[in-house]
Amino acid sequence: MIDPAIFFDPLALGIVGAGTLLATAARGPWRDTVRAFRALPLLWRKPFDFAPARAELAGAERIATAKSLLAIDSQLLRDPDVAEGVQAVLDGDAPDDVEALLDRLREARLDRHAVVQDWWAAAAETAPALGMVGTLIGLVQLFRVMDDPAAIGGAMAVALLATLYGALIANLLAAPIAARLRRLSRAEEIERRALVRPFRAFAARELPRHRREAA
Amino acid sequence: MIDPAIFFDPLALGIVGAGTLLATAARGPWRDTVRAFRALPLLWRKPFDFAPARAELAGAERIATAKSLLAIDSQLLRDPDVAEGVQAVLDGDAPDDVEALLDRLREARLDRHAVVQDWWAAAAETAPALGMVGTLIGLVQLFRVMDDPAAIGGAMAVALLATLYGALIANLLAAPIAARLRRLSRAEEIERRALVRPFRAFAARELPRHRREAA
Amino acid sequence: MIDPAIFFDPLALGIVGAGTLLATAARGPWRDTVRAFRALPLLWRKPFDFAPARAELAGAERIATAKSLLAIDSQLLRDPDVAEGVQAVLDGDAPDDVEALLDRLREARLDRHAVVQDWWAAAAETAPALGMVGTLIGLVQLFRVMDDPAAIGGAMAVALLATLYGALIANLLAAPIAARLRRLSRAEEIERRALVRPFRAFAARELPRHRREAA
Amino acid sequence: MIDPAIFFDPLALGIVGAGTLLATAARGPWRDTVRAFRALPLLWRKPFDFAPARAELAGAERIATAKSLLAIDSQLLRDPDVAEGVQAVLDGDAPDDVEALLDRLREARLDRHAVVQDWWAAAAETAPALGMVGTLIGLVQLFRVMDDPAAIGGAMAVALLATLYGALIANLLAAPIAARLRRLSRAEEIERRALVRPFRAFAARELPRHRREAA
Amino acid sequence: MIDPAIFFDPLALGIVGAGTLLATAARGPWRDTVRAFRALPLLWRKPFDFAPARAELAGAERIATAKSLLAIDSQLLRDPDVAEGVQAVLDGDAPDDVEALLDRLREARLDRHAVVQDWWAAAAETAPALGMVGTLIGLVQLFRVMDDPAAIGGAMAVALLATLYGALIANLLAAPIAARLRRLSRAEEIERRALVRPFRAFAARELPRHRREAA
Repeated sequence: MIDPAIFFDPLALGIVGAGTLLATAARGPWRDTVRAFRALPLLWRKPFDFAPARAELAGAERIATAKSLLAIDSQLLRDPDVAEGVQAVLDGDAPDDVEALLDRLREARLDRHAVVQDWWAAAAETAPALGMVGTLIGLVQLFRVMDDPAAIGGAMAVALLATLYGALIANLLAAPIAARLRRLSRAEEIERRALVRPFRAFAARELPRHRREAA
Repeated sequence: MIDPAIFFDPLALGIVGAGTLLATAARGPWRDTVRAFRALPLLWRKPFDFAPARAELAGAERIATAKSLLAIDSQLLRDPDVAEGVQAVLDGDAPDDVEALLDRLREARLDRHAVVQDWWAAAAETAPALGMVGTLIGLVQLFRVMDDPAAIGGAMAVALLATLYGALIANLLAAPIAARLRRLSRAEEIERRALVRPFRAFAARELPRHRREAA
Repeated sequence: MIDPAIFFDPLALGIVGAGTLLATAARGPWRDTVRAFRALPLLWRKPFDFAPARAELAGAERIATAKSLLAIDSQLLRDPDVAEGVQAVLDGDAPDDVEALLDRLREARLDRHAVVQDWWAAAAETAPALGMVGTLIGLVQLFRVMDDPAAIGGAMAVALLATLYGALIANLLAAPIAARLRRLSRAEEIERRALVRPFRAFAARELPRHRREAA
Repeated sequence: MIDPAIFFDPLALGIVGAGTLLATAARGPWRDTVRAFRALPLLWRKPFDFAPARAELAGAERIATAKSLLAIDSQLLRDPDVAEGVQAVLDGDAPDDVEALLDRLREARLDRHAVVQDWWAAAAETAPALGMVGTLIGLVQLFRVMDDPAAIGGAMAVALLATLYGALIANLLAAPIAARLRRLSRAEEIERRALVRPFRAFAARELPRHRREAA
Repeated sequence: MIDPAIFFDPLALGIVGAGTLLATAARGPWRDTVRAFRALPLLWRKPFDFAPARAELAGAERIATAKSLLAIDSQLLRDPDVAEGVQAVLDGDAPDDVEALLDRLREARLDRHAVVQDWWAAAAETAPALGMVGTLIGLVQLFRVMDDPAAIGGAMAVALLATLYGALIANLLAAPIAARLRRLSRAEEIERRALVRPFRAFAARELPRHRREAA
């Protein structure tokens, strides 16, 4: 059997890993890199679900009908878009204004998501190049010290490991992460877009009452 | 003659095949991968044909003319779009609403198809990289155990097989599947678009009768 | 001098040629492949020329002025678009309808052309990969049977020929064909667009006469 | 010191140079290739300058004011767009028509420029592939006649020169030419767009006088 | 330990560095290359901040309210867009004209930024090719003078360094610079767009007073 340890070389892994991280982080402010890693837990969480957000909105509507708009505390709502939207209804915004607010919130979210997806896509592009860099560093060393022919095989193996790491980081890590985050972001966008209609209806129902109370 | 068995190496095939599957599946929810394989029988089936769908619609129209709209059982219609469209006419929808419904159905179908095409296109991109991964794994082993010069040739052959498998999976399997599915999807879209006009006519003819009956 | 025969290897050519053909044909219905080869004579023919089509239209107009619209036999017109357009004028279509018809015909032609251009572009993308496949097949054989060192040079040469064939097919054959067909198609589109204005004028002139005769 | 002559091999240069020329020329009518080379002197000439064209127009306006429109000989104007535009004003075109004429002239110029830029971009894409073709031809020869080990080094060097030539032609010649022509074309477009406003003013001023004279 | 000096070869670095610079500079006027390097300090400076520009505008508004519009010296304003915008208000431009002016200034800035980003993106594309050129030059030399087998290792190491330099310049220098500049430019665009609204309000407030004073 093959010893798996022969596929591990800390120096090669360091060059490829740190190099990819550095080259990708240098493409934007440090904040982007932090966000790129903070987004990783999303991969294992369930995708955004319309139902709870819709339920929160429905709850807010029930309270509004039963008591009065002022009884809703938008601070208690967990979904940020629902919270902001309900607050806008509380403030007596017209349906068109509430829709524009939700559109703006969704667009800003898409922009934030795109930064993170671009980070991982850039990492997927950079990793193979850094893998080649690692291999070239190994080969230069190898050719410079070609005294002991017996050692060449091992040195060559180490050099090739860098290319291997680059290919693995790009194809099994960074590219799937970028693609998956893009898919989650699109799914959330579509789900959230479906919130516009019930919000418009809510705002349209509350607007006259709000005006009455304000008068 | 060449022995074809020399082109078969289960380990190399396993690395490239399983690696490509894994890397592609990781790009989205597991559901996408299931759909990507469920779509394969479509490749051998005949492309979507406008005629049967048109015939179903014509049949529904005949029944509507002869008896009444309520005599049509939209459940019996095989084409899902025709079924939903006829149901909408049964419900007394205006031509514009029926057209909007058909547009929505076609758009949702295009989106579902795009997910599957993207899966296979991603597999076609990933397979050569995984082929290189397999070859590198083989080469590292080779250089580590370069004791027996006689064995090098065979080990090198096995290493190269991984690259070969990656190129074959990408170019003879995944890329043609993705391209063919895209072509089928576009053809179906164009054919289905031609259903809008007869449906509008049907809805326009039934609308007054529906209103009369409802009155 | 070099013997040109050393650059010919039927097996390598077979793998690359047949592989490229197969992989490209598998991307769509068989009909596309037939069309891709049927389009080849266009490359040597002169590009579409506006003048004869315009002359045919002018001839039809002269007959219409001298005798009557019914004296024109649209079957005798060689250009298919002119024939359909003149037939539409014969049928008393308004200028807007004739223009819409010509637009539809031009768009359908562009779609048909795009299928053929895409075929050759796909072949240009696939050929180098199949060249690599042929080379890998050669190398695997070579390493498996590395008994006779004297034979290695020749076997390696044959293996490299596959890559050579792939590069030649892609760069000297498929890519130029795809680019040239695209260029011809665009030129025809621009020339044909110039037919719209004289057709509109023809239809505008004939419409009242047609109505008089019909009355 | 290194003898620069070792980097020159007429056969390799011939294969790469002639191959790239042939493969690129085959992408369109021969006329495109002629134009691609005729455009080269533009690279050393100064970019299009708005000032002389504006001065010509101003001169034409002065003559028009002092004497009469008919005193301007549009044939003497050197800038083709100014000449056609002044001729249109002479013919009594309305400002909107003059603007449409200038737009058409600019668009046609952009199209002509794009053909030439595409030629050089295609050459930049093709040259590295032809470089590989030359190297493969060299390697096949090399492996076929591997009798004299001493000659291998030199033959290998010649083979590599083809790849070198391909990379140089693509990156130091064709790609910069394509990019530079695109940049010049865009700059000219922006400068020429600024001619529209003074031309409109000129046409608006001359139109009533023209009508008076015509009356 | 490895001697870091083995990774430094002035000739290889010269070929790759100067070649990349030359090939990239040749893509446009020399002015673009100067701007590309002049933009580098921006990378370490803080990104454009809306607050100071907004503060400058607010200061100008205060002076306008307290004394009169003529008391503002737009020359003293540091932000060029605020200065031009305030000058336009001083000149009594309507809100729509001030907005159009700000839009034009922002668009011209985006165009200037794009030239610099494209320069670095082109350098990132060119550097690996020039790295290959350097390696090929090294290899050709190597094969030509393959007399002393002991020297081959060192010569090969030098040849590989060129590829290494090309990969490093592209992935750790040029590509991150291009990406970072693009990101900064987009951020500035979004921040600056937020200046439009307060400027419109300022112009709307000053317009009547300006008219009064002018009267």
